[in-house]
Amino acid sequence: MLARVGTMRARARFYVAAALTTAINAVQILDGRATAKAIRAELGAEVASIQKTHGVTPGLGVLLVGDRRDSLTYVRMKRKAADEVGIFSSDVTLPASASEDDVLEAVSKLNADPQIHGILVQLPLPSHIDESRILETISPNKDADGFCYENVARLVLRGGPRPLATACTPAGCVELLQRYDIPLAGKRAVVLGRSNVVGAPVAALLQQCDATVTLCHSASENVPDIVREADVVIAAVGKPEYVRGSWLKPGATVIDVGINAVDDATKKAGYRLVGDVHFDEASQVVSAITPVPGGVGPMTIAMLLSNVVNLTKASVGLPMAPLPGRLADKV
Amino acid sequence: MLARVGTMRARARFYVAAALTTAINAVQILDGRATAKAIRAELGAEVASIQKTHGVTPGLGVLLVGDRRDSLTYVRMKRKAADEVGIFSSDVTLPASASEDDVLEAVSKLNADPQIHGILVQLPLPSHIDESRILETISPNKDADGFCYENVARLVLRGGPRPLATACTPAGCVELLQRYDIPLAGKRAVVLGRSNVVGAPVAALLQQCDATVTLCHSASENVPDIVREADVVIAAVGKPEYVRGSWLKPGATVIDVGINAVDDATKKAGYRLVGDVHFDEASQVVSAITPVPGGVGPMTIAMLLSNVVNLTKASVGLPMAPLPGRLADKV
Ligand SMILES: NC(=O)c1ccc[n+]([C@@H]2O[C@H](COP(=O)([O-])OP(=O)(O)OC[C@H]3O[C@@H](n4cnc5c(N)ncnc54)[C@H](OP(=O)(O)O)[C@@H]3O)[C@@H](O)[C@H]2O)c1
Ligand SMILES: NC(=O)c1ccc[n+]([C@@H]2O[C@H](COP(=O)([O-])OP(=O)(O)OC[C@H]3O[C@@H](n4cnc5c(N)ncnc54)[C@H](OP(=O)(O)O)[C@@H]3O)[C@@H](O)[C@H]2O)c1
Repeated sequence: MLARVGTMRARARFYVAAALTTAINAVQILDGRATAKAIRAELGAEVASIQKTHGVTPGLGVLLVGDRRDSLTYVRMKRKAADEVGIFSSDVTLPASASEDDVLEAVSKLNADPQIHGILVQLPLPSHIDESRILETISPNKDADGFCYENVARLVLRGGPRPLATACTPAGCVELLQRYDIPLAGKRAVVLGRSNVVGAPVAALLQQCDATVTLCHSASENVPDIVREADVVIAAVGKPEYVRGSWLKPGATVIDVGINAVDDATKKAGYRLVGDVHFDEASQVVSAITPVPGGVGPMTIAMLLSNVVNLTKASVGLPMAPLPGRLADKV
Repeated sequence: MLARVGTMRARARFYVAAALTTAINAVQILDGRATAKAIRAELGAEVASIQKTHGVTPGLGVLLVGDRRDSLTYVRMKRKAADEVGIFSSDVTLPASASEDDVLEAVSKLNADPQIHGILVQLPLPSHIDESRILETISPNKDADGFCYENVARLVLRGGPRPLATACTPAGCVELLQRYDIPLAGKRAVVLGRSNVVGAPVAALLQQCDATVTLCHSASENVPDIVREADVVIAAVGKPEYVRGSWLKPGATVIDVGINAVDDATKKAGYRLVGDVHFDEASQVVSAITPVPGGVGPMTIAMLLSNVVNLTKASVGLPMAPLPGRLADKV
């Protein structure tokens, strides 16, 4: 009897606690996988329409130097996604020993190829090759990753022509926020990490969306206090579960860009993927968060396809779709 | 007798108050005029040395379209400063009615002129002319203002080649901070204003100096609270005495970029110049501040000359001087 009362009490406590948790913090999972799928469906329709009206199939040229396992995986995923929306893709593979001139020549060929509307050089390149020189060789109007000087500058400049393409991971972060109607204008955004591919361009995009952006990096002091001010946190640091729940403002939104493999003997692969944010802790505090995997990753690939479709449109004189960040104003 | 005691008391009160003010807040005035003079002297010596070793005189081409009074004043000041350090300067003046093609042609001529190492197009241009198109026509290695895509992108990108020139007002702000040994690495910097010529590039430069930068603009909420977090405040808003003393963290450093004319019947001109910061209030709180005028203004012109000397050095194969922000690492 006593035991039964104890059980009932425990059960009651559980239900009350659960109800309270729900009331206090109903966290929304920002589903990158589902959102990316919806975007791919939209892009598929656009591709079909361009084919119909202009007889042109968008083409993506992917240049891979060497045989890094992660790069091979990424390239395969990108090709699969391109196939799905009807983008023609063509792979150029060079050995890790290729010279800088070999790589430059391959880029020039893709620049000249009328079937190719977007060129992607899979990074990182082998260390003997000057990455910035290769990226500068890509024609700005085939720059599927938005990494060339002209597109980088157009992104950070106010007014003037919009970039022809925007770095894919940053665009994916902002597109996800926009599709979930997370307000940005006037809000405080804290970006952790300032790399050329993620941190710096996502800060620029958020600022174009009228957020007040603070950019943190490895030299920043008091990072937890800074994160605590943020309505929106973008974590792109590369440190597993670095951002703790106690750092976050209740009700904030978290975009976790990090993809880190940590040892896990319970998994077949011997590891599992975690983000730069401690998901379980954060979920108790914030109002919305991306999972890892299934958050920013799929969005990145969807934005690559979106860039290729946009570049194709520009090449046939069709208006480009609005970029995330309402940069459409710039057109 | 009573009167005398009263006077003595008042005097004593004055001395105690003065001593307290000094003890509590000895504010350092960041003297842009003196610093710019020192920089001009350094540049004068460099110009003489380039003439001696390479037989080349640095040349600045200034293109002015129309006859705005403020623009005429700026152009005159720049020419005078160039003269002082031995930079040859050549003015091209077009009427306000000049067509975009006329302006493009004038820029192309300066691009081709071997006597010219730096080109400055005085902004703003008349509204019928596409500013970004004109700026893009300036050859990146004659881009005295650092406004072209290539130099803008090189400034914001980490790694890769350094910009050939950096926007002058931002460079002046950071150079002044560096010459006064104000620490930036790890510190919080708040930039008010995000224009292409001041706010955005000064934020990029501060970040390259490892500051943690927050960029505010007209849509930012709670600006006073954000300013209160800052170790270094850069105000570039264009609103007279907008930043109040109560917004500032005790001991902070303030760089006031604003130049605003406010009515003042006691002045011969009928107005006086004030910054974007309430100087008297701020001086009670901060540890260092620039005056207006005599702060950022003279530094801006000194940095223009520095850009021209650097571009000349690059053109003859001499190493460029370090840019502010230790971007020298990029060379
Ligand atoms: N989901 C996707 O599609 C996708 C795409 C790209 C990358 N990623 C993942 O995102 C993460 C970041 O990638 P990345 O390419 O940007 O990495 P990265 O190039 O290594 O840059 C990491 C950045 O984090 C900064 N940082 C280091 N410690 C920090 C700290 N304690 N606080 C704040 N910032 C700190 C670094 O600062 P310094 O500049 O001072 O060194 C650097 O700017 C990685 O986990 C990567 O796998 C995911
Ligand atoms: N000392 C020098 O050599 C020098 C050189 C250049 C300029 N200046 C002076 O510096 C000032 C700024 O020049 P500018 O060319 O950058 O001006 P601008 O192009 O008019 O830009 C002003 C910036 O301030 C932002 N802003 C407006 N209200 C704000 C607020 N309440 N809080 C925070 N930011 C706000 C604007 O935001 P939005 O982007 O949202 O509109 C904009 O980005 C002017 O006084 C100018 O005369 C001095």
